[in-house]
Amino acid sequence: MTQSENPRVVIAGAGFGGLSAARTLAHSPVDVMVVDRNTYHTFLPLLYQVAAGELEPGDIAYPVRTILRKIPSAKFAMVEVKRVDLARRVVETDGPEIPYDYLILATGTVDHFLRVPGAPEHAFSLKTLEEAIALRNHILGCVERADYEPDEEHRQSLISFAIVGGGPTGVEFAGALAELIHGPLEKDCRTLDFSQAGIVLIEATGRLLPTLPEPLGVYAANRLREMGVEVRLESLVDRVTPDSLHLQDGTIIPACTTVWAAGVRGDPQAKASGLPTARRGRVAVLPTLQAPDHPEVYVIGDLAYFEQEGSPLPMIAQVALQGGLAAARNIERQLGGQEPLPFRYKDRGTMATIGRNHAAAYAYGRTFTGFPAWLLWLSIHLFYLIGFRNRLLVMINWARHYFFREHAACRILPSEQGPPARVAQQGSGLAGDGE
Amino acid sequence: MTQSENPRVVIAGAGFGGLSAARTLAHSPVDVMVVDRNTYHTFLPLLYQVAAGELEPGDIAYPVRTILRKIPSAKFAMVEVKRVDLARRVVETDGPEIPYDYLILATGTVDHFLRVPGAPEHAFSLKTLEEAIALRNHILGCVERADYEPDEEHRQSLISFAIVGGGPTGVEFAGALAELIHGPLEKDCRTLDFSQAGIVLIEATGRLLPTLPEPLGVYAANRLREMGVEVRLESLVDRVTPDSLHLQDGTIIPACTTVWAAGVRGDPQAKASGLPTARRGRVAVLPTLQAPDHPEVYVIGDLAYFEQEGSPLPMIAQVALQGGLAAARNIERQLGGQEPLPFRYKDRGTMATIGRNHAAAYAYGRTFTGFPAWLLWLSIHLFYLIGFRNRLLVMINWARHYFFREHAACRILPSEQGPPARVAQQGSGLAGDGE
Repeated sequence: MTQSENPRVVIAGAGFGGLSAARTLAHSPVDVMVVDRNTYHTFLPLLYQVAAGELEPGDIAYPVRTILRKIPSAKFAMVEVKRVDLARRVVETDGPEIPYDYLILATGTVDHFLRVPGAPEHAFSLKTLEEAIALRNHILGCVERADYEPDEEHRQSLISFAIVGGGPTGVEFAGALAELIHGPLEKDCRTLDFSQAGIVLIEATGRLLPTLPEPLGVYAANRLREMGVEVRLESLVDRVTPDSLHLQDGTIIPACTTVWAAGVRGDPQAKASGLPTARRGRVAVLPTLQAPDHPEVYVIGDLAYFEQEGSPLPMIAQVALQGGLAAARNIERQLGGQEPLPFRYKDRGTMATIGRNHAAAYAYGRTFTGFPAWLLWLSIHLFYLIGFRNRLLVMINWARHYFFREHAACRILPSEQGPPARVAQQGSGLAGDGE
Repeated sequence: MTQSENPRVVIAGAGFGGLSAARTLAHSPVDVMVVDRNTYHTFLPLLYQVAAGELEPGDIAYPVRTILRKIPSAKFAMVEVKRVDLARRVVETDGPEIPYDYLILATGTVDHFLRVPGAPEHAFSLKTLEEAIALRNHILGCVERADYEPDEEHRQSLISFAIVGGGPTGVEFAGALAELIHGPLEKDCRTLDFSQAGIVLIEATGRLLPTLPEPLGVYAANRLREMGVEVRLESLVDRVTPDSLHLQDGTIIPACTTVWAAGVRGDPQAKASGLPTARRGRVAVLPTLQAPDHPEVYVIGDLAYFEQEGSPLPMIAQVALQGGLAAARNIERQLGGQEPLPFRYKDRGTMATIGRNHAAAYAYGRTFTGFPAWLLWLSIHLFYLIGFRNRLLVMINWARHYFFREHAACRILPSEQGPPARVAQQGSGLAGDGE
């Protein structure tokens, strides 16, 4: 298949930002190449529900090639970006080198463990589908093991969970985990005493959901406490071990599961490519979303550090979607001989769900809590889920979960990290169990 | 929770046989303990559809604990059986030891590579959910790689597939793979020439589906050939390499994917426990399904070798389901002071599906082919899928596949074996691709 002499636009990353850019370029006289290390787009806002066994991995993963079907000029390659050679205008990958005329970098962030000893080895991340599956398998594996663990102390730490970070991810996961434990797990493991189970949410600042208005953080904390989650504000983590979390005030929380939802930094590839980075490895872009000194390179989504009215834009899907659109439009302007326009983010609201039918939302300059906020959250997320089938399946899973308090996905399915390896083993007493 | 002094019945394996036995014992005065290395029951007859991206792993995996909810006397432990100490009446596992008064062994079979060099290392199995996911990821990974592979020969072997074994698994997978390739993959990878793709089905005997009546084997071969599958009968495998399959007649089939559907042997744990084994490590049971010299031990399902009217029973779900029922009834008889009764298998028919809307079935002493056989196959499989939600989701997936030739599950999702490791790598030319 011979192709045209069209300019080549390479989009690195098939997240919200990358796909938004690809769609915007659908009718432009350019050849688009989308690259990602996965064949699927991950609907990240619902990742925590996979980890909590509410959704199947497939419910939030949609094949990039199927999305791109509607864009005849777009191609896809499953490769991982290693570095960008800005001088040669080539993306270096684990596969072939990919030359570009214009580049849109949208490879997001990676976890940042803030130099907490033990965190990289023992804490579970919640940034990719693989990690969500590994975390789910680990949680279910711990409960399975607790069911025949004779030592009371160890049994308790097997069904205790520490979550570090009180942003949306930490808050949403804490709520979903409480419902998983006191719903289907309690129902299925009849011989296990779940009153010993504990969920602790650790936040360094004085409130939850620091990017939302204050009353919503207070609401989230109250709601989580009602659900049995211990919320510890102004708590700093000292270190993580396989079966405990140590705080700087000396408190030791026995827990075989520590979930890290505390910090991220920009994909290290950006720094390795020589792009100027702001704090935590995110690329400090120009107002047009271009990289300084490289008018042919745009950086969007979580990887871009962009200040508007004195404060950095949050790392959420809306910013990435709008950034992808703006970058694509600016490339079209450049191709037409015009100057790129500065990007301006329109805040359509942010929100976090807290368990079954409660949420905290900020939209149109107002705060919403409780069931109305949850309905808002539900409709917005369903609206953005790509593909009819996914929307329908997610609806079915949710309806079932909602009406029957049933978790569809409570199985330990194959994943990169099986559950037993990371569970601290001790002697066990299944033999004496029925006597 | 203190339990009664009821006799302990341990059921090793939560397949069709084990769960059938557990359900039969639901109202008996016994304490049932089901053990399995997975938390879920796998609906094995549809495993090949997971490998071909037609179904999601979750569609055919159902949590054992949820199944057992209806049986108050039944407990579950996620452990792997290592050996049975017949003298001490204890099941040794990777976790605790589990004592029993009665034992039902239903741990099935493992792959048997028939001493073919390279097969254990390079051939893909299709016996567990993990293996089905690994195979799917490998196939999709090969296609992704082929899309930018400059070397024509290597590109062809990346999209060529050899299947060893012309039984139901081999036949069903060959049909599903042909539809995957010439359906969604062809549609999504527009730059790849799939006319170079090849699927070869290798069978050692003179016909396909040797356990079904002869005309059905002929029908299956014709149908597969119409779908573009090369069927090679009376072909013996010499060895397997990462990118080819060598036959004993000297033929070399270039293929980066070899699927092994040719032979199984009984779970080695049975032999290690000192149980008398017939051919290929399956336990030669008494007519009552008891192990010789151990009236308290029953062996059922694929692990049991049982002859009826001079020929061994096939390794299919029906035999396991009926065996589980019979073993449980015999334990009830023993508890009541009666002699166990001999097992008699009632053949309700066997069948294999061949791609979209064709199947070969033998039931009620008659053979069925084509669409009527497929409808029969569909209704029987839906009937046996455990759990309403699974039935509904499988229906939705199938309906979509049927009406839109759309594969719902064509993503490389996280699994134990990622795709790139096993794909033979060569230089590639994505860079020159659009020029």
